[in-house]
Amino acid sequence: MSQHARRQRPEADPFTERTPRVVAARHLTRRQGRDKAGRFLVEGAQAVREALAWQGGEVHELFVTVTAAERNAELLQTADQAGIRISEVTDKAAASLSETVTPQGLIAVCDAVPQPLESALQGTPRLVAVLYGVSDPGNAGTVTRVADAAGADAVIFAGDTVDPHNGKCVRASTGSLFHVPIARSRDAAEVFAACRQAGLKLVAADGHAKDDLVEASAKGELTQPTAWVFGSEAHGLPDDVVAKLDTSLKVPMYGAAESLNLATAAAVCLYASVRDQRNLS
Amino acid sequence: MSQHARRQRPEADPFTERTPRVVAARHLTRRQGRDKAGRFLVEGAQAVREALAWQGGEVHELFVTVTAAERNAELLQTADQAGIRISEVTDKAAASLSETVTPQGLIAVCDAVPQPLESALQGTPRLVAVLYGVSDPGNAGTVTRVADAAGADAVIFAGDTVDPHNGKCVRASTGSLFHVPIARSRDAAEVFAACRQAGLKLVAADGHAKDDLVEASAKGELTQPTAWVFGSEAHGLPDDVVAKLDTSLKVPMYGAAESLNLATAAAVCLYASVRDQRNLS
Repeated sequence: MSQHARRQRPEADPFTERTPRVVAARHLTRRQGRDKAGRFLVEGAQAVREALAWQGGEVHELFVTVTAAERNAELLQTADQAGIRISEVTDKAAASLSETVTPQGLIAVCDAVPQPLESALQGTPRLVAVLYGVSDPGNAGTVTRVADAAGADAVIFAGDTVDPHNGKCVRASTGSLFHVPIARSRDAAEVFAACRQAGLKLVAADGHAKDDLVEASAKGELTQPTAWVFGSEAHGLPDDVVAKLDTSLKVPMYGAAESLNLATAAAVCLYASVRDQRNLS
Repeated sequence: MSQHARRQRPEADPFTERTPRVVAARHLTRRQGRDKAGRFLVEGAQAVREALAWQGGEVHELFVTVTAAERNAELLQTADQAGIRISEVTDKAAASLSETVTPQGLIAVCDAVPQPLESALQGTPRLVAVLYGVSDPGNAGTVTRVADAAGADAVIFAGDTVDPHNGKCVRASTGSLFHVPIARSRDAAEVFAACRQAGLKLVAADGHAKDDLVEASAKGELTQPTAWVFGSEAHGLPDDVVAKLDTSLKVPMYGAAESLNLATAAAVCLYASVRDQRNLS
């Protein structure tokens, strides 16, 4: 990579954690900074590769350590050819931009992923995941990955849900944040209205629901275009939210387990819908 | 709790990390120690409650800090009535028995959970989860929880899979280790033979399989009694293991995600089987 860095900054020393551009990027490790800039940080080779291939926004610059540059020559060439500014940074500077225990030495500054609700729900969506009040970023990212795998049309971060750009959420999504349209809104009523407008049935995934999805599937009730609404792992969905939706279904517990964790429950719900929708067509 | 401790050791000081019984229990934080003793440690109120209710083995003793005793008076009364030795320990001693960042101050010494393969597979099992070469304890515990939720008849830790008594595995199982029969064997051939003997079809959950489970479900192929075999998250199942099984199925990826993580994939597989088996009957 040093050749790329040199091409842009011929005789410069690596950026340190005090270099203004690194300081500016470090603001993106906090939600407030990300919201203000409309940008976020993406770390590691796989995630940066996904960001570079993403059609929904731009990568604005790359920071890379000497060691990471040697490991990722091809990736940096791709970025360089796309005209993306690449800067060599010290290990300490890279660590200051990282939220992981073992910094990867490769960080991209990238446009925020959410798009307007109407845009994320355009066309005739058949399967959507709505996260409501999900505070754990790992869970939110894993559900995004599952939604992508199930071919969902969108993932919506609603109400007081974690920022999709949170470093742990980005990592847990393993690139899916760049694959599936993402929207967010603090106003859950607006989200539910937009889903209905798009022809989606709003189904609460609720461990306390009377009906379960295996029975619902047997009755042919899962073939409709559906927005599954998932609550926090600790508290589930509040009653007043469940009351606003069209129906509630639980994942049946056939053994003695009290519940599933959020990501595994979401996997069962989303694949139950996709299975019935696909076997119909 | 101090009343219980007093009942057994009227004027004793709390055990420290150097008290022989605590030292002996600390050997159980390592696999070698657990294998030798045939016992393991269970930490926290929920897990200890499950251990006390367990029919498959015994709780031999409880260690508790003053603070944890105050929070868990009822639980300690239950244990005391069951004749279980309860000893007050210092915070430091409790921490020395804990594998968590925030020790819970309540630890039980409990019989190992695995039973012989033949016993775990007795009767006419319809759904079994086999873990082969799963090294991450959190994944193994979460799959055990999912298998319990899906009403699986047994979970088998096969080959070079993590010890089910690993602290992280116990925590991730959220009690399911005590609900569903557990067996383990390093000899995978023995596990596969026992599953066949019990009338189970051996299905590899393999991301590289030609066929997917949604198609298999549509063709009615998931109604048979099935042992799903899951490999490690990093490497999946080795080809020579897949070759020994009856068939392979993948969870279909409808979007751009490359894969699901092990626990979410297992949730989709196990619930696909249980759904088809239950809608049949």
